[in-house]
Amino acid sequence: MWTCRNGVMTHVTNSIFKDGYPFYLNTIMFAPAVIGQGTPEQQAIWLKKALNYEIIGTFAQTELGHGTFIRGLETTAHYDPRTQEFILNSPTLTSYKWWPGSLGHTANYAIVVAQLHTQGVCHGIHLFIVQIRDEETHEPLPGIKIGEIGTKLGMHTINNGFLGFENVRIPREHMLMKYSKVLEDGSYVRSPSNRLTYGTMIFVRVVMLQHSAFYLAKASTIAIRYSAVRRQCTIKPGELEVQILDYRTQQYKLFPYLAASFAIRFTAICSWNMYSEVIAELEGDLERLPELHELLCCLKAICTTIAAHGVETCRLSCGGHGYMTCSNLPSLYGFAAGACTYEGENTVMLLQTARYLMKAWQQAVGGMAMTPTVAYLKQAISGNNGLQYWDNSTACIVRGFQEVAAGKIKQCAENMSKRIQEGFSPQDAWNMTSIELVQCAEAHAHAFIVEKFVTSVAEFNASVSLKTVLTQLSDLYILFSLLHNSGDFLMYTNMKPVDVSNLQNQMEIILSQLRPNAVGIVDGFDFHDETLRSALGAWDGQVYERMFEAASKSPLNKDPLNESFQKYLKPLLKSNM
Amino acid sequence: MWTCRNGVMTHVTNSIFKDGYPFYLNTIMFAPAVIGQGTPEQQAIWLKKALNYEIIGTFAQTELGHGTFIRGLETTAHYDPRTQEFILNSPTLTSYKWWPGSLGHTANYAIVVAQLHTQGVCHGIHLFIVQIRDEETHEPLPGIKIGEIGTKLGMHTINNGFLGFENVRIPREHMLMKYSKVLEDGSYVRSPSNRLTYGTMIFVRVVMLQHSAFYLAKASTIAIRYSAVRRQCTIKPGELEVQILDYRTQQYKLFPYLAASFAIRFTAICSWNMYSEVIAELEGDLERLPELHELLCCLKAICTTIAAHGVETCRLSCGGHGYMTCSNLPSLYGFAAGACTYEGENTVMLLQTARYLMKAWQQAVGGMAMTPTVAYLKQAISGNNGLQYWDNSTACIVRGFQEVAAGKIKQCAENMSKRIQEGFSPQDAWNMTSIELVQCAEAHAHAFIVEKFVTSVAEFNASVSLKTVLTQLSDLYILFSLLHNSGDFLMYTNMKPVDVSNLQNQMEIILSQLRPNAVGIVDGFDFHDETLRSALGAWDGQVYERMFEAASKSPLNKDPLNESFQKYLKPLLKSNM
Repeated sequence: MWTCRNGVMTHVTNSIFKDGYPFYLNTIMFAPAVIGQGTPEQQAIWLKKALNYEIIGTFAQTELGHGTFIRGLETTAHYDPRTQEFILNSPTLTSYKWWPGSLGHTANYAIVVAQLHTQGVCHGIHLFIVQIRDEETHEPLPGIKIGEIGTKLGMHTINNGFLGFENVRIPREHMLMKYSKVLEDGSYVRSPSNRLTYGTMIFVRVVMLQHSAFYLAKASTIAIRYSAVRRQCTIKPGELEVQILDYRTQQYKLFPYLAASFAIRFTAICSWNMYSEVIAELEGDLERLPELHELLCCLKAICTTIAAHGVETCRLSCGGHGYMTCSNLPSLYGFAAGACTYEGENTVMLLQTARYLMKAWQQAVGGMAMTPTVAYLKQAISGNNGLQYWDNSTACIVRGFQEVAAGKIKQCAENMSKRIQEGFSPQDAWNMTSIELVQCAEAHAHAFIVEKFVTSVAEFNASVSLKTVLTQLSDLYILFSLLHNSGDFLMYTNMKPVDVSNLQNQMEIILSQLRPNAVGIVDGFDFHDETLRSALGAWDGQVYERMFEAASKSPLNKDPLNESFQKYLKPLLKSNM
Repeated sequence: MWTCRNGVMTHVTNSIFKDGYPFYLNTIMFAPAVIGQGTPEQQAIWLKKALNYEIIGTFAQTELGHGTFIRGLETTAHYDPRTQEFILNSPTLTSYKWWPGSLGHTANYAIVVAQLHTQGVCHGIHLFIVQIRDEETHEPLPGIKIGEIGTKLGMHTINNGFLGFENVRIPREHMLMKYSKVLEDGSYVRSPSNRLTYGTMIFVRVVMLQHSAFYLAKASTIAIRYSAVRRQCTIKPGELEVQILDYRTQQYKLFPYLAASFAIRFTAICSWNMYSEVIAELEGDLERLPELHELLCCLKAICTTIAAHGVETCRLSCGGHGYMTCSNLPSLYGFAAGACTYEGENTVMLLQTARYLMKAWQQAVGGMAMTPTVAYLKQAISGNNGLQYWDNSTACIVRGFQEVAAGKIKQCAENMSKRIQEGFSPQDAWNMTSIELVQCAEAHAHAFIVEKFVTSVAEFNASVSLKTVLTQLSDLYILFSLLHNSGDFLMYTNMKPVDVSNLQNQMEIILSQLRPNAVGIVDGFDFHDETLRSALGAWDGQVYERMFEAASKSPLNKDPLNESFQKYLKPLLKSNM
């Protein structure tokens, strides 16, 4: 399943770099930005160097004081027509670039996002390739202030850095000019469309979906294998202690997130296909770009949230031992949790999608044609939500997710209108409604994910037995998601309280059906021990031996007696006798 | 608010030891166990030494292969009447003690939980005081195998350790013999009641509630102060960037967990009072002990879960900067998340309470007298759940939480009966129903917490203005909790879908009412900067200056050029040119 090129790359780098790959930004951000924003000439120069690892690039957008609001970035690039150079400056402390991966020690080039000034006018943010370190000595170049930002929750081997500029001059040709341009004399040529800059963002977010599925698959593998080894308590007096995987509560922690790893994986595949289609159209028709962009915003938010929550649930399911670094679950959580705030903070992402959904609702009400991902709004308009009955079937539940989304979108649109009618400005009304707007976008994303999961499994070309298991996984996922939002279904669909008990029962049956195959499913991911890096999740199940071996390597066990005894502890103990 | 003795202690140790206090187990476990289980003579010797820091004790119960199921512990203590000694052994790898705090390097004594064997009979687990290191040299004593278990998600300065025994002899008087005894000739005298050993567990769990409130208060302080400093985007074009605390979505992340810190704090106070009353009775009447024990099991689980989730929500609300160690939020999460698995894994805790609730339901159905914490089940029995109407009032919602709990308990009892009638054994029926049993115990805990919060605020002796704010906090907490479980209320109370929208609206109004006081409330916790240890949450609001200062101290910035360049990076870059 993970044998796509990106998967292999992630496998290999994971087995070398425990907490992140320090060249990752070069591949995932620097090169794609050159492709997306560079002229053919620029691509010829920089892409070759980057992909060939002759230089190591990073992408420097976020500043110490500015993340989400890109228009507010403070770094400046003033064009000097006399020398045909841009002069970069960091005018304030808050304008220092902060966070770029690899920047601390690895990268020697950066794509820097800065406010372009030419002929006395600021034209907003543009991208510039800046050399930051000498290619021979790796020393920072004059005017470049650079360093590492300090320790973090995770991703310890990605040396995130800071970067400041003091009159740093770069050639005019170092501005990425595929669309907007600055001519030799300093004249500014505007991009034909600002939609064109979406490409890299969408690409990165599709990759993030793949990673979210990957983190969940790894965490599930570790926790399910451990749960087959670990024994605890007796269900029946006199019998052997039970494998904890036999406890229904343990299955309820693990199997829904195992299923979620498939749900997100199929979502990623569908998004990748949509992305590829749109990119093929990019030079011509741009109509589908906004829809894809808005879709990826909410999918990025929801999938990274599910992954972070799922990894942590897997970690907690291993009890105290999941707290140990040697389980590798804390490190996986560091990755999964980081993704909730980088490349677009999740709440901001959801509000971005909500804005699109509000427009789509108006279009649906106005009887206009709808793009595919919001076509379900049409049905919601055409009276009683399209559904006359509720039969607990998979198809019914999938439609139910769309009805919930449509119901919430409608409610938000009404609340917005009401507040505007009461005299609030549209901006204030938006802020006042924003909690529900976030929930709209969440519901929209869930509706997309469950539909793609169910459809992908139905269309998947597999043996009957494999298809049975995949169907159990997709059924489990939709039931689990529904039951976690039962209030929404009771409010916005024809589901009744009695259905909740029946669906709960259905879900519990699927948990028991998945139990015998659980270890087989995660073995099927084919993670090597070197990639999993987990004493709890290794192939051979020698959990306790491996934990002991890991502990024996702790630096604190190097000397039998820590020097702190003579220095601090003994004086304390003796002073009190 | 945090000026109680335990609070002061936590403050002081927090400002010295960043990630945990290495003498903590001596105070919180070793000494209380001596008090709870030691004879007056044993207390006279060991309590004085421990509280005076002449020795450092820890508590060694959990083993590498055994946590929850204490009866399954493998460490043995065989009594030898010839020398009047116990001989301790670790017969297997899985029997090694694993996890005790301070054990790695600090402690020189441990209370060891082991299977007592005397006169050829195993009498189950008992507590033994074992010297593990020489008092002068701190070297491990003969037969003692000891070390540190390696790095973890958090609590880095608590040196958790492992411990194995090979024929370690200790005097007979080192068995804690307040209740069970072994006489000189090896005869065993049974404890008058096994309830008597609950005391220390209950005490520790009450302290854990206090800590959960403390973690939430700290995280809220950091995130709310940061949100008042951080500015992002404009709500209205042309205006200054907005303090992110003005965003309704940000308030929705932060204020409910600020309120939760108060909810848990009041729950802890009520539990402490109940504990003190019961302890005063301990020598005589033990009737209230099981109720208190079962209550603390579910409160421990729910409060630590809320705290972990709340700390993480606060962390995420700070965007990328919350990911940095210098925010101190990752460390706080390490504490809060650890509490979900230590001192009783949370799911196990909830199932423990559920067992009590199932018995209580049978008693209620049988018309028997009910103890106070489950008295609400009586009302549920007496037809249509006691409630004829739903009016969205606080009193109504508090009763609603009890109705949800009663409804879920009733449903579980019915499902259990049904499964037993279908031919499943009671043990299998229990396992099959366990997902819902966990939810019963959660609902029971929530009902207790909201009732105590509302009642405590109502009875709190404060100025009108302070009381207004406290009432806003308790109202917010109950509305937030209800809306997160709206499905349960739609199923088990007379609340209708239309009420959900109204309650959502009420909650949003309270968020806006709390906004002007939010910084004041967290300032009122009076955390010193030394205790908060957060660049984002410091009193002066100099967020960016402090982040920069913290980064400048990173060991990776010591040399401008990391040695890895010459060793690894340069050869890579040059090989590709």
